[in-house]
Amino acid sequence: MSQLPPKNTYSSFMSIALEEAQKAAERGEVPVGAVLVQDGVVLAQAGNRTLELNDPTAHAEVLVIREACQQISSQRLPNADLYVTLEPCPMCAAAISFARIKRLYYGAQDAKGGAVESGTCFFEQPTCHHAPEVYSGLSERASKDLLQKFFQSRRS
Amino acid sequence: MSQLPPKNTYSSFMSIALEEAQKAAERGEVPVGAVLVQDGVVLAQAGNRTLELNDPTAHAEVLVIREACQQISSQRLPNADLYVTLEPCPMCAAAISFARIKRLYYGAQDAKGGAVESGTCFFEQPTCHHAPEVYSGLSERASKDLLQKFFQSRRS
Repeated sequence: MSQLPPKNTYSSFMSIALEEAQKAAERGEVPVGAVLVQDGVVLAQAGNRTLELNDPTAHAEVLVIREACQQISSQRLPNADLYVTLEPCPMCAAAISFARIKRLYYGAQDAKGGAVESGTCFFEQPTCHHAPEVYSGLSERASKDLLQKFFQSRRS
Repeated sequence: MSQLPPKNTYSSFMSIALEEAQKAAERGEVPVGAVLVQDGVVLAQAGNRTLELNDPTAHAEVLVIREACQQISSQRLPNADLYVTLEPCPMCAAAISFARIKRLYYGAQDAKGGAVESGTCFFEQPTCHHAPEVYSGLSERASKDLLQKFFQSRRS
């Protein structure tokens, strides 16, 4: 885990990711949002759409990676930074690695399902052949609040 | 890892997976093929298309999971079996888990990039919330031969 960069370089992109997470909640999806940025420009932004698309791979991170790759006609994004509200799962962590993403910024830790600082810690494994720089704990409270409210409302 | 089932229950589906792997090689893609089967019927079959689609997530397993989910209008495939020529990577192993696939049959082991009996052994981890039954080593020689020939021809 690296030191956090200056706040002005990431806070506006995390705000967009949080808006995407909020919109996902309004659609009844687990509220996670992601943004892919290259040279200060948003290439793609999305929230989870697994229910809407009937696609278990339609996590926010996979959706923005797929869309950004279409935009630049490449399966690799070595100059792109990914912002996501929750610690990526093993599927998304591996997709981030395959896409050669440069930096990963994320919000809340996911002890039950994450794969960066939790679970398999994929980027630290010998079977990981590209690891991004990782910055965690950004907008952590807001990211967690969205998830907690969502799961509380589902239980009640 | 479970005991292999009787050969007649899997060999025809592994043959289809191998044909998809061969077709992937002919397109210049890493030769891995996959088939999703439910009640003895093929729901989806595909080979890798990461280059063709500019999509780092377009592994054979992800393609068949996404297609089969469209067909049955669900993000879960609890009665489906996946046949794939190579040990799934962490991305595909997690997608298999999220889709609640019942049984996984695969060919060659992938010590460098696999995540079932190699690397993170994802299905055995506490952050894995559904593990399929796993049968490995099916058509192993044919699966490996396709991969070795492909990488040899790329080097020469």
